[in-house]
Amino acid sequence: MNIQEIIAKKRDGKELNQEDINYFVTKYTDGTITDYQAAALVMAIYINGMNKEEITNLTLEMAKSGDILDLSQISKNVIDKHSTGGVGDKITLILTPIIASLGIPVAKMSGRGLGFTGGTVDKLESIPGYKTDIQISDFIDNVKKIGISLIGQTANLAPADKKIYALRDTINCVGSMPLIASSIMSKKIAAGANKIVLDVTVGSGAFMKNKQDAIKLSNMMKEIGKLADRETVCVLTNMDEPVGYAVGNTLEIIETIECLNGNIPKDIEEIITTIGSYIIKLSGKSDDLEENKKMILQNIENGKAYNKFLELVQNQGGDIEYIKNVEKFEKAKHIMPVIAKKEGYIQELNAEKIGMISVMLGAGRMKKEDNIDKAVGIILNKKISNKVKKGDILAYVHANDEQKGKEAVEEIKNIYKISEMEVEKEEIILGII
Amino acid sequence: MNIQEIIAKKRDGKELNQEDINYFVTKYTDGTITDYQAAALVMAIYINGMNKEEITNLTLEMAKSGDILDLSQISKNVIDKHSTGGVGDKITLILTPIIASLGIPVAKMSGRGLGFTGGTVDKLESIPGYKTDIQISDFIDNVKKIGISLIGQTANLAPADKKIYALRDTINCVGSMPLIASSIMSKKIAAGANKIVLDVTVGSGAFMKNKQDAIKLSNMMKEIGKLADRETVCVLTNMDEPVGYAVGNTLEIIETIECLNGNIPKDIEEIITTIGSYIIKLSGKSDDLEENKKMILQNIENGKAYNKFLELVQNQGGDIEYIKNVEKFEKAKHIMPVIAKKEGYIQELNAEKIGMISVMLGAGRMKKEDNIDKAVGIILNKKISNKVKKGDILAYVHANDEQKGKEAVEEIKNIYKISEMEVEKEEIILGII
Repeated sequence: MNIQEIIAKKRDGKELNQEDINYFVTKYTDGTITDYQAAALVMAIYINGMNKEEITNLTLEMAKSGDILDLSQISKNVIDKHSTGGVGDKITLILTPIIASLGIPVAKMSGRGLGFTGGTVDKLESIPGYKTDIQISDFIDNVKKIGISLIGQTANLAPADKKIYALRDTINCVGSMPLIASSIMSKKIAAGANKIVLDVTVGSGAFMKNKQDAIKLSNMMKEIGKLADRETVCVLTNMDEPVGYAVGNTLEIIETIECLNGNIPKDIEEIITTIGSYIIKLSGKSDDLEENKKMILQNIENGKAYNKFLELVQNQGGDIEYIKNVEKFEKAKHIMPVIAKKEGYIQELNAEKIGMISVMLGAGRMKKEDNIDKAVGIILNKKISNKVKKGDILAYVHANDEQKGKEAVEEIKNIYKISEMEVEKEEIILGII
Repeated sequence: MNIQEIIAKKRDGKELNQEDINYFVTKYTDGTITDYQAAALVMAIYINGMNKEEITNLTLEMAKSGDILDLSQISKNVIDKHSTGGVGDKITLILTPIIASLGIPVAKMSGRGLGFTGGTVDKLESIPGYKTDIQISDFIDNVKKIGISLIGQTANLAPADKKIYALRDTINCVGSMPLIASSIMSKKIAAGANKIVLDVTVGSGAFMKNKQDAIKLSNMMKEIGKLADRETVCVLTNMDEPVGYAVGNTLEIIETIECLNGNIPKDIEEIITTIGSYIIKLSGKSDDLEENKKMILQNIENGKAYNKFLELVQNQGGDIEYIKNVEKFEKAKHIMPVIAKKEGYIQELNAEKIGMISVMLGAGRMKKEDNIDKAVGIILNKKISNKVKKGDILAYVHANDEQKGKEAVEEIKNIYKISEMEVEKEEIILGII
């Protein structure tokens, strides 16, 4: 077997068998196969696609390329929750303490932000002292002790995926559905969960720009889960506008704390209750989804979820005084309002564009090596369907560089599309697969 | 403009415009675009194809990536003859002295062999003293002085093509018709000809395995020629079995000399008269193709072509005593017969397989850096349709390594497919486009 034959097969639209995929993944990871040979194969996969068996084999081979965590000592059912990425997406931060407060163990590794999407690890690191880089044994001990741990990807998980993903990024092959599906699932399988709930985002701020594509991706991942013996549920959520009101690392931590204190925007409430109800179901605790939703809201109201969050932060070295008093967080130097130019209803608020401005302000990174500025970002004041008058404040830009702040204000003014006609609220949950 | 956008266009089956192609060729040649990005684009071109305008633009941009020779001082019409490659293909060596002996100037740069196909430059270098690496000014002076010069590619011709070709080779994208057509035509345009005659080989020993593909490639190259103002004629020739009887460098030089002395195998005669008649026509000397064929045969009979070959060799530093007495050429140590196992008619004699054995014996190279052994090769004694008796000699292996020679004998025995039924001779000229 050699890479030339494998390339020729996929080039000609033929199926790759398990040996082919194993050879590619192993030999690309160890450097025998060159980047240009892998690039040719990835492009052929992008154009000619892959069938279910190929996608599943690719997923499993990428998972096997590094460590596969064994979390069975924590619980019979270990559930992972993952989002396909978005803007203002702090769902993991809000939902996991709620789940843990219900007695369901949460052992979650998250990623950093790249491009216009933020990352949970960057947000957690806005809390002074919070350690995301800890040993796997400590990670497991934390979960055993307090029922929850949220960390960065510390183990050598799916290194083949990491290498292939970086390559896809440079050759414009990120948007390939078989490659997205296998990338996500390989990391989930390596991270040790046996039950997976996926938040598949749909819209301008997501990889999947429309519902049909999101359904296709969800079916693909569910199928991989089935063949790999991992029960998988996909919740399709709207990402046409950002989730909640805050975009930026510290700003999103503050919104998380507000939510856990019971002050929850409607869209976030819908997403956490829906995804959460499936997590509770997969844990084996309760099959009644409506009942599960109630449990979630209840543990916010009674303060148990907030207390679990405090416990998590403290246990992981974070300073809980910041959580108790969010005024302690360092603020950006300039907080600048974005003023509505005319009266009407917010018709569009493109999440990707808001994400890009947030990156421009310093809240995200375009390259892996970029540093991020925790304090900067955007607080939305109006969202789709809201009525506004001329002169109303649409949003606040939080900037440390005044010039960049001014640019952001001008751009956001144009991103808010205002219609004279009334605009309906968009649906938040677009489907369960 | 950036390479990511260009990749995305072709990935999605869209057309690349002239600026896109200029950007790719320029920036890949200067190293701004990486090999893996180029590999992704080349694979997308392989799968999604290119239209006429794209192929022509690619051809012209690759031609412009290096020197473009100006041969107009030699003659108003400068004709180039090129073969798409084959096994035992010594047509250039036989035909060019004939053409020059008719008063039509020949200024030809040839390539080296790679893979199972041989190269004219390697064959010429079998003649002791013959210099293939000379200055362009001397090359032109030679043509002015004696009407002919055959050399290697000394100028910096189409470096972009060289780089893209090498990449295609490593990612199994050699067989892409738009890429083959633009590669050939870019070098021909850079080499300064304004009239081009292409020997498009078809069959097991050629890139084009069937006639339909050869017709498609020919139409593509003719179209490029038209758009680039280079009159182009394609002659489709059969390459199911090797051309003539000799395969190997010195062995093919000896066969060339025999042909020029009037001892011409039927297939070679058909090819040189057909291709030659079009070269004479494009030169403006005579439009009558039948008359042109007669002129060719006449100048073999009257010795003028042979004398022109002697003049060429002498003028380029070669020792003509070898030409006058081919016994002087160094022979391989072992000359081993291949014996027919049964009676019948030769049905098949796969040219590619014969070419591979010749490479295995040392006559060719699999990598550019490989050295070649001039003396080794194969002399065929029987060809398709010939009748053989059990015990007849099918071929002779010329080997310097006895073990390899024995292997070659065994393999060639199996390459000769012998049928009990009578077999018709194959057509040699399959079409003119």
